Amino acid sequence: MFPAFSLVVLCFLGTVLATNGTRPNIILLLMDDMGWGDIGVFGEPSKETPNIDQMASEGILFPDFYTANPLCSPSRASLLTGRLPIRNGFYTTNDHARNAYTPQEILGGIPDSEVLLPELLKKAGYINKIIGKWHLGHRRKYHPLSHGFDEWFGSPNCHFGPYDNVERPNIPVYKDWEMIGRYYEDIYINHKTGESNLTQIYLQEAIKFINKYGNSGQPFFMYWAIDATHAPVYASSSFLGTSRRGLYGDAVREIDFSIGKILDVLKTTGIAKDTFVFFTSDNGAALISAPNQGGSNSPFLCGKQTTFEGGMRVPGIAWWPGHLAAGRVSYQIANVMDLFTTSLVLAGLDPPVDREIDGIDLTPVILDGKEIERPIFYYRGNELMAVRLGQYKAHYWTWSNSWEELSQNIKY
Amino acid sequence: MFPAFSLVVLCFLGTVLATNGTRPNIILLLMDDMGWGDIGVFGEPSKETPNIDQMASEGILFPDFYTANPLCSPSRASLLTGRLPIRNGFYTTNDHARNAYTPQEILGGIPDSEVLLPELLKKAGYINKIIGKWHLGHRRKYHPLSHGFDEWFGSPNCHFGPYDNVERPNIPVYKDWEMIGRYYEDIYINHKTGESNLTQIYLQEAIKFINKYGNSGQPFFMYWAIDATHAPVYASSSFLGTSRRGLYGDAVREIDFSIGKILDVLKTTGIAKDTFVFFTSDNGAALISAPNQGGSNSPFLCGKQTTFEGGMRVPGIAWWPGHLAAGRVSYQIANVMDLFTTSLVLAGLDPPVDREIDGIDLTPVILDGKEIERPIFYYRGNELMAVRLGQYKAHYWTWSNSWEELSQNIKY
Ligand SMILES: [Ca+2]
Ligand SMILES: [Ca+2]
Repeated sequence: MFPAFSLVVLCFLGTVLATNGTRPNIILLLMDDMGWGDIGVFGEPSKETPNIDQMASEGILFPDFYTANPLCSPSRASLLTGRLPIRNGFYTTNDHARNAYTPQEILGGIPDSEVLLPELLKKAGYINKIIGKWHLGHRRKYHPLSHGFDEWFGSPNCHFGPYDNVERPNIPVYKDWEMIGRYYEDIYINHKTGESNLTQIYLQEAIKFINKYGNSGQPFFMYWAIDATHAPVYASSSFLGTSRRGLYGDAVREIDFSIGKILDVLKTTGIAKDTFVFFTSDNGAALISAPNQGGSNSPFLCGKQTTFEGGMRVPGIAWWPGHLAAGRVSYQIANVMDLFTTSLVLAGLDPPVDREIDGIDLTPVILDGKEIERPIFYYRGNELMAVRLGQYKAHYWTWSNSWEELSQNIKY
Repeated sequence: MFPAFSLVVLCFLGTVLATNGTRPNIILLLMDDMGWGDIGVFGEPSKETPNIDQMASEGILFPDFYTANPLCSPSRASLLTGRLPIRNGFYTTNDHARNAYTPQEILGGIPDSEVLLPELLKKAGYINKIIGKWHLGHRRKYHPLSHGFDEWFGSPNCHFGPYDNVERPNIPVYKDWEMIGRYYEDIYINHKTGESNLTQIYLQEAIKFINKYGNSGQPFFMYWAIDATHAPVYASSSFLGTSRRGLYGDAVREIDFSIGKILDVLKTTGIAKDTFVFFTSDNGAALISAPNQGGSNSPFLCGKQTTFEGGMRVPGIAWWPGHLAAGRVSYQIANVMDLFTTSLVLAGLDPPVDREIDGIDLTPVILDGKEIERPIFYYRGNELMAVRLGQYKAHYWTWSNSWEELSQNIKY
């Protein structure tokens, strides 16, 4: 009713955020290959995500949230740099965008010239932890602790394997700089039953970190990049067989349980109102692995690896009790890259001005209900496949499959 | 924890319902061609159904709810008789189930030998009104007031047209026995703009009926069978252009608004706790009319006219404040035919024993949280296409299209 007054409030809030030292903690809950349609509030028929749904009812739901690329590595590089893959180096130039997979094997890892979110947050006094999958390179110079993180528990790659030969060792798991073991040798994953307690380990790491720094006076950034919904899908024994959706659903249920626990810890330690939490996924569900090892993109076409909505549109939920209007739906067209810029603004920092940043500041959206017009660019490798602006999407190329499939005369 | 105790409570409740005279009013909100994915709580991305979503949060959501047939007439015949179309006469035998459309032109209308829900409810003292589309025959012997309804405002068929010749007159609109006008001549529908105020008329009819009988001491049955989401889709001028989904979404928004008003009237007149309301649709979204004239079946395959999930699975929400656990999700596999049997039990009546009834009594499900094992039979005409039992569905035939398309070599 009083738009002018709202604007004043917003400016005042912006100033408060930037100057008075009450920088919120920031938690990014990043899912792996989880589809838009995998959670109850977005229409999953079995409605097995009560904690994530509750998070939405206490926060803001973003039905028009996107990843920057339909693959793990470029999506994560974009989230942490605020830049499209064609800018941060995580893209392919071969096979006319029909092969865009595992770009880190092509380029090696995140370039030193990129400035990552934790590097910048450090300047505002944040302690930064990554729990889970890094996927931006496995050599020492690409290590998360070389790029702004203070702590790490997780792995540089997916839990692929088992590999039992000298040429191709099992994928390592790190605690900070130290390799503490390898998947299948030291970290139990059973392909036959789907059993692994890895999500429980990641949950305990999160709770320990929150308890340690939550009331320390120092703000924290926690990047919880778990991977139970990436094939080979896994769940702990107590969750196996509990879903109506099979093993994939068991993994989702364990993640939902864990997110409930994390939000509970924020509440019981009294820091919920000081902690901005965002839930999303790195790319759409991998339909090639569905239904038992892959999720659902619900009404949207195709999935992971494609630039159709099923590959690029992902769930988005913002949560920050006392700061965000509970139960709101925002139609803002937003992107994982915006989490970079928004986190900086929340921390009272200015985004870098020495390079192009593609992520926009969502604080006017989450704090004041505004809607900002902006495009979504859908890339495969270096090929711009489509653009969305408002309610319109222009497709420049419409294939969904790989070069190998094309050479077998499969042309879609 | 005490299943034996629960059973006792249930039996007691059953007795109460049957004998103490507090028979609830019954309202069936039946949508036309609205898909499972068209409402927010089932994942429609624009989240434009706040009132229906609120109804779900105050009631029980049924993600596994089915129609008895993926077409208007047989679905409605099944709802009102509790019997599969192959039993109540609304089926085809020609073209090996590839043409199952407009069965009322084949069989004429609802047979006198069928016993309809309002006929039975009348025995328990109910006053019965149908508002909207009947679709079970247009000749006098098929008229709703010949089959148990006391009042009618609506039409024997869809709002097709305009027809401007003597051989094919415009479709009539009735008030009880009297034809009060015809679509396009007396009831305004503009194909170019999509404007019609018909949903508002149906809403006013509902409010008038509730106000008249709500506190009269006589229980009522209101069958609100509106058709704004059946092509040609329409909405009132104040709703046109308000949806993010186009004209179809405008119609959904007006329906959502109207359902909010109906539930409000139940609350303000103090009869909400005495009124059982069920929201569902007669069949899945008509994909042939989508996106501007048809809805969404979200994750489900195909749509109206087919026996895939998109044709047969429909939204289901039960609402009865003070009697149902608010916000529950029931995985009960249920069917529009169950609304026949359940309504009878709520009214303290026994279902007919002189014929096969396919609908089951859902009162143990809605009142006591039980889950009953039962199959879903998917028919096209007289051909059993598929069966679902538990989490499994067996497809005996897998085509989706018509005989005309098959003769053009389209084989799916
Ligand atoms: Ca991924
Ligand atoms: Ca229909």
